[in-house]
Amino acid sequence: MALRDWFPKYRQDVVLLAVDLVGTFVFAVEGALAGIRGELDLLGLLVVSFVTALGGGTVRDLLIGAVPPNSIRDWRYGATALAGGGAVFCFYQSFQHVPQQLLITLDAAGLALFAMAGAGKALEFGINPMIAVLMGVLTGVGGGTIRDVLMTRVPGILNTDIYASAALAGAAVMVIGLALKVPRTIAMTVGGVCCFVLRMVAVARHWNLPKVISH
Amino acid sequence: MALRDWFPKYRQDVVLLAVDLVGTFVFAVEGALAGIRGELDLLGLLVVSFVTALGGGTVRDLLIGAVPPNSIRDWRYGATALAGGGAVFCFYQSFQHVPQQLLITLDAAGLALFAMAGAGKALEFGINPMIAVLMGVLTGVGGGTIRDVLMTRVPGILNTDIYASAALAGAAVMVIGLALKVPRTIAMTVGGVCCFVLRMVAVARHWNLPKVISH
Amino acid sequence: MALRDWFPKYRQDVVLLAVDLVGTFVFAVEGALAGIRGELDLLGLLVVSFVTALGGGTVRDLLIGAVPPNSIRDWRYGATALAGGGAVFCFYQSFQHVPQQLLITLDAAGLALFAMAGAGKALEFGINPMIAVLMGVLTGVGGGTIRDVLMTRVPGILNTDIYASAALAGAAVMVIGLALKVPRTIAMTVGGVCCFVLRMVAVARHWNLPKVISH
Repeated sequence: MALRDWFPKYRQDVVLLAVDLVGTFVFAVEGALAGIRGELDLLGLLVVSFVTALGGGTVRDLLIGAVPPNSIRDWRYGATALAGGGAVFCFYQSFQHVPQQLLITLDAAGLALFAMAGAGKALEFGINPMIAVLMGVLTGVGGGTIRDVLMTRVPGILNTDIYASAALAGAAVMVIGLALKVPRTIAMTVGGVCCFVLRMVAVARHWNLPKVISH
Repeated sequence: MALRDWFPKYRQDVVLLAVDLVGTFVFAVEGALAGIRGELDLLGLLVVSFVTALGGGTVRDLLIGAVPPNSIRDWRYGATALAGGGAVFCFYQSFQHVPQQLLITLDAAGLALFAMAGAGKALEFGINPMIAVLMGVLTGVGGGTIRDVLMTRVPGILNTDIYASAALAGAAVMVIGLALKVPRTIAMTVGGVCCFVLRMVAVARHWNLPKVISH
Repeated sequence: MALRDWFPKYRQDVVLLAVDLVGTFVFAVEGALAGIRGELDLLGLLVVSFVTALGGGTVRDLLIGAVPPNSIRDWRYGATALAGGGAVFCFYQSFQHVPQQLLITLDAAGLALFAMAGAGKALEFGINPMIAVLMGVLTGVGGGTIRDVLMTRVPGILNTDIYASAALAGAAVMVIGLALKVPRTIAMTVGGVCCFVLRMVAVARHWNLPKVISH
C-alpha cells in the first residue's frame, strides 16, 4: 500500500497504482478465505477482507502521523478490498480451485510489496531507520494479525513460520541500502526480492524460527 | 457520539447533547451487563462500559484525523460511560428486571444515532462518502467489537444477526440523501429510521446474513 | 514512559531518561516471559516485548494527539524493549532464577512510573484531569492488555487483582495534588508511592476487587 505516496512525482503513474491495488486485492482474497473457514457471514467476510488488506497500512499511517490514513483518504483501496471479499463470496467454488502454490506466491509478492512500501513511507515521514523497518513489517503483517485477533486466534506471526521475519529482512536490506546511498529503486527492488525469496524458500523447506522451551 | 460536533451552530443545544449522552449511557449499560456475564471485576466492568460506549467513536476520530477524539476531549462522555457501568454494578438486581425488548429497542435507537452521527462527522472532515458510510458503521459497532475482542469472543457482528448491516444501510441512505441535496436533518432522520426499523424487524424475524459453506 | 517529555527543561537529564528506559526494559522482560510461556517463537517474543513495554504509551500518545508517539519518534525506547526481549531469549535459564518477589517489585515500580508519566503527559497536552487519570492507567496497563489480547487471553486487569486500580489511585492522587497547586515533583512522588504501595500490599494480602455475581 501507499507505493504511490512514496513516489510523489509518479503520483499519476497507473502502473504503480495498479501494483498497489493488486496487492490489496490479493490480501483481501486471503482475508475472505480465512473468514469463510471461520464461518463468518457476508458482512463479517467483508470486514476481515478490509482489515486484512488495509489494517497494517492504516495502523502504520496512524503511528507515523500520516492522518487520515491512506485507506481512509483514497476510496480506491477500500473499494478494492471490498471487491476482493465480494469476489470470494460470489465465486467461492472457483477460488477453491486456485492452486495453493499460486496463493502462496502471490501472498509472498504482496508481503514484499507492502513491507517495502511501508518502510519507505515511514522514512519519508522522517521516522528513524530502525523504526522504519518495523513499520515495514507492520504494513506487511499487521492486517493479518488484526484479522486473527478479531477471529480470536493467536496470530500466526507470533508462533509459526518465517513470514514477518522475511518482511523484516527485506525491509532492513532496503533501509540499509538507502543509508549507503544506493538509488531508491534499486534498494527497494533488492529488498523486495530478498523478502520474496526468503519467504518462498522458508515455505518450501518448512523453516521455522527458534523457540525457547519453557518448563 | 459527536452529534454536537456535527451541528456546530447548535453546539450549546442541550437537547442534542442529552440525546448523545443518553446513547452513550445505553451502550455503557450493555457493555457492563456483558462484563458481568463475563465475570469481570468492578474495574473490568468500568473498562468494558467505557470501551463499548466510546470505542467506536474514538477509533473513527483517530482515523478521520479528529484528534484528540471526542471521548478524550470532552470529559462528559467518559463520565457518562463510567456512570452507566457504575449504575449496573450498584443496581444489578434492578437492571436484570429491565425487559429484554426494551434493551433491544434502546440499543437499536443508539445504533441508529451513532451510525448517523459517525457518518456525518466523517463527511464534515472531508472523507469520501463511501468511506464515510463505513465510518458510520464503525461508530455504531466498533465499541462492542473491541469489547468482544477484549473478552476473547468472536465479535457478534462478524457472524450473527443483522446489526452492522442495519447501520450500513442507514448510513448509506443518509449519505446518498445528502449527495442528492436532501436537507441534512431530513437525510439524517430518514437514515436513522431505516437503521432502527431494519434492526427491529431483523430481531423480530430472526434474520441473518448469508454465509458461504466451506467444505 | 515519556518522563522526559514531561520535564522539557530536563530534556537532557540522563537520570530521567535512564529511569524511563529501565522501566521499559522491565516491562519488556515481563512481556518476553509471558511470550515464552505462550510458546511464541523468537519473533513473536520480540513482538510481545515491544508491545508490553511500549503499547500503553503508544495508544495514549495517539489519543492525546502526541503524534508520532514517543515509541516511534525516539528509537531508544524500541531498542530497549527489543533488548529486553532478546535478553530473555538468550538467557532464559538465568531469568528463571530471578526471584518472583523481585519481578513483582520491579513491575510495581514500573507501573507507578508509567502511570505518573502518562497522566502527566496527558495534562501537558491539555487533557481534562479526569481523562488524564485514565490516560495514566492506560500507560501503565495498556501494553500488557494488548499483549494478552494478541495471545487470546482475557486481559488480567479485567478480572483479577489490584493492578490497574493501583495505577488509577496513584494517578488520581497526583492529578488532585496538582490541582491543589502542590509542586509537580512532590505530587508525582506521592502519587507514585501510593500506586507502588497499594500494588505491593494488594499482592501480599491477595486483595481483589469486588465482582457482581450473575445468575
